[in-house]
Amino acid sequence: MDYNTMCPKYEVTIDIIGKKWTGLIIRVLLGGSRRFKDIKKQIPEMSDRMLTERMKELEAVGIVARHVYPETPVRIEYDLTEKGKSLRSVIDAIQCWSEEWVEDCKLQK
Amino acid sequence: MDYNTMCPKYEVTIDIIGKKWTGLIIRVLLGGSRRFKDIKKQIPEMSDRMLTERMKELEAVGIVARHVYPETPVRIEYDLTEKGKSLRSVIDAIQCWSEEWVEDCKLQK
Repeated sequence: MDYNTMCPKYEVTIDIIGKKWTGLIIRVLLGGSRRFKDIKKQIPEMSDRMLTERMKELEAVGIVARHVYPETPVRIEYDLTEKGKSLRSVIDAIQCWSEEWVEDCKLQK
Repeated sequence: MDYNTMCPKYEVTIDIIGKKWTGLIIRVLLGGSRRFKDIKKQIPEMSDRMLTERMKELEAVGIVARHVYPETPVRIEYDLTEKGKSLRSVIDAIQCWSEEWVEDCKLQK
């Protein structure tokens, strides 16, 4: 791989997945279809407003799909598209690195 | 991998590498030892102040090492530590995903 010139496609990806909370949201959705409140449950520190914003962004770039089921009450679920699912390699690489390099002592907030 | 519970170590990593510019800086340093201005050359839109801040953060978490060579004028170079170099798997996964999924039309800013 050529690290000596910046790649515009790489920059686009970093702009998308490097945003605050996005790396966490995608990890949750790799577990399968989720409702808004299911995502919140795994990322409780994130505000509703922020999650709404991020989901719209991820939908706009074709990483997340929103499904509306016309039940009573209406059920809305989010899942990863094919494009989104293929981010698994990125998320798994981050997870592996974390397990090797992040020390437990740094987890105390 | 268990995507049904959030991993605190993963969260720590996202906090570090998910920051604006950091994903680009690490990619540049995978090319080898670099001076401040070499990094800037590949990421011209980033301000000096921002690069300085990011390098201090990356040094603090042990991803980047700063080397001062007492020449005239003094030469300062940055490179990745062992911990930093092992982020190659993450950066390469992002690059691969980008090449598959980022369309050229989205590159026009």
